[in-house]
Amino acid sequence: MYQYEFPHPAITTDIVLFTIRDKQLKLLLVRRGSEPFKGTWALPGGFMQIDEDLESSARRELAEETGIEGVYLEQLYTFGAVDRDPRERVVTVAYYALAASDQMVLRAATDAEAVDWFDMDTLPELAFDHRQIVAMAHKRLVAKLDYSTIAFQFMPQEFTLSELQDVYEIILREELDRRNFRKWILALEQIEETGREKRQGAHRPAKLYRVIDPGRVEIIK
Amino acid sequence: MYQYEFPHPAITTDIVLFTIRDKQLKLLLVRRGSEPFKGTWALPGGFMQIDEDLESSARRELAEETGIEGVYLEQLYTFGAVDRDPRERVVTVAYYALAASDQMVLRAATDAEAVDWFDMDTLPELAFDHRQIVAMAHKRLVAKLDYSTIAFQFMPQEFTLSELQDVYEIILREELDRRNFRKWILALEQIEETGREKRQGAHRPAKLYRVIDPGRVEIIK
Repeated sequence: MYQYEFPHPAITTDIVLFTIRDKQLKLLLVRRGSEPFKGTWALPGGFMQIDEDLESSARRELAEETGIEGVYLEQLYTFGAVDRDPRERVVTVAYYALAASDQMVLRAATDAEAVDWFDMDTLPELAFDHRQIVAMAHKRLVAKLDYSTIAFQFMPQEFTLSELQDVYEIILREELDRRNFRKWILALEQIEETGREKRQGAHRPAKLYRVIDPGRVEIIK
Repeated sequence: MYQYEFPHPAITTDIVLFTIRDKQLKLLLVRRGSEPFKGTWALPGGFMQIDEDLESSARRELAEETGIEGVYLEQLYTFGAVDRDPRERVVTVAYYALAASDQMVLRAATDAEAVDWFDMDTLPELAFDHRQIVAMAHKRLVAKLDYSTIAFQFMPQEFTLSELQDVYEIILREELDRRNFRKWILALEQIEETGREKRQGAHRPAKLYRVIDPGRVEIIK
């Protein structure tokens, strides 16, 4: 047992991981294998260990519960309502993360009895205050699309400009002008031609691009 | 004594409070009255109580240590490096806050043996990782000036457009064109004339304005 002079809270990290699949924005959820909220879908996450920093905790929990590693991750917000967990006082540091569509081998383990992608439009009931956390992460993603290169984190290693435009259109829920989009995205000087092309049906082959510095998200305004 | 099956961290909140005085951006600091870092300047802040939420904790600590209440406050970021506090594992949820120049009666108490405003250009040595927290808050303030009405939080109840422009120029460290600034700021439709004027020396009297919804920070892009 561990003893303290004053009551101490627990700290968890939770991860809101988005990807784009089947032309839809998807959220990664795990089905809880233990109480509270056993059997309910929830964000992957769990208790921070006393000797790990916050981001390490988030990455460890994501890897343990879902099998996903090496994604782009940013701290979102810390949620600390007094009654947000029925067990004890738990403050959670939420992260949001973006995965490319080719980064996906799911494997449920530890506290998760299942793991799956959910369409953002048809989310199931979520445990704790996770609905609120997801809403904030979604808002941040939409805002950040406008002033950063965060969308590149959704792209596979090589992609066409049409595929990149699809990602923006899916998240923003609006059609963009093809010519303006191309001009704008190339002017950012964040992607380069690979020298290869992609053939799709009867269309003219499209140039394949790659992100110049894939690990970085640039602020562009 | 309080007992737990697993080791628990402590949570603190720390507050980065800015104001503008004497045409300079100022930061509020307290001199620590107890160990660790006794006698060193630090951000106001302290341990979250087990039955209060995070923002309440930040407001309580700010009021207790400095006498300041009712300021605009936003969560900034949570800092959790394993060794950031020599006592025990402490994760701190940092807030940044803005005070108007007429909101200022300082009164040091509880853990603070002194409280004062410091020019951002000549900060003293700070306790813990507070230098890093201040740097992030400053960056956020500069960024937010560009896409929100956060600067209004620095203004007294009534102000002239010149005084408002001064605030932008002080934070951005650049001169702005008077005519363009006025056009831009009025087009936001966030301030209104009070009907009163202010006389300064031999100048023509200047119209006094007020913020229409003083409690709110609008995103303007």
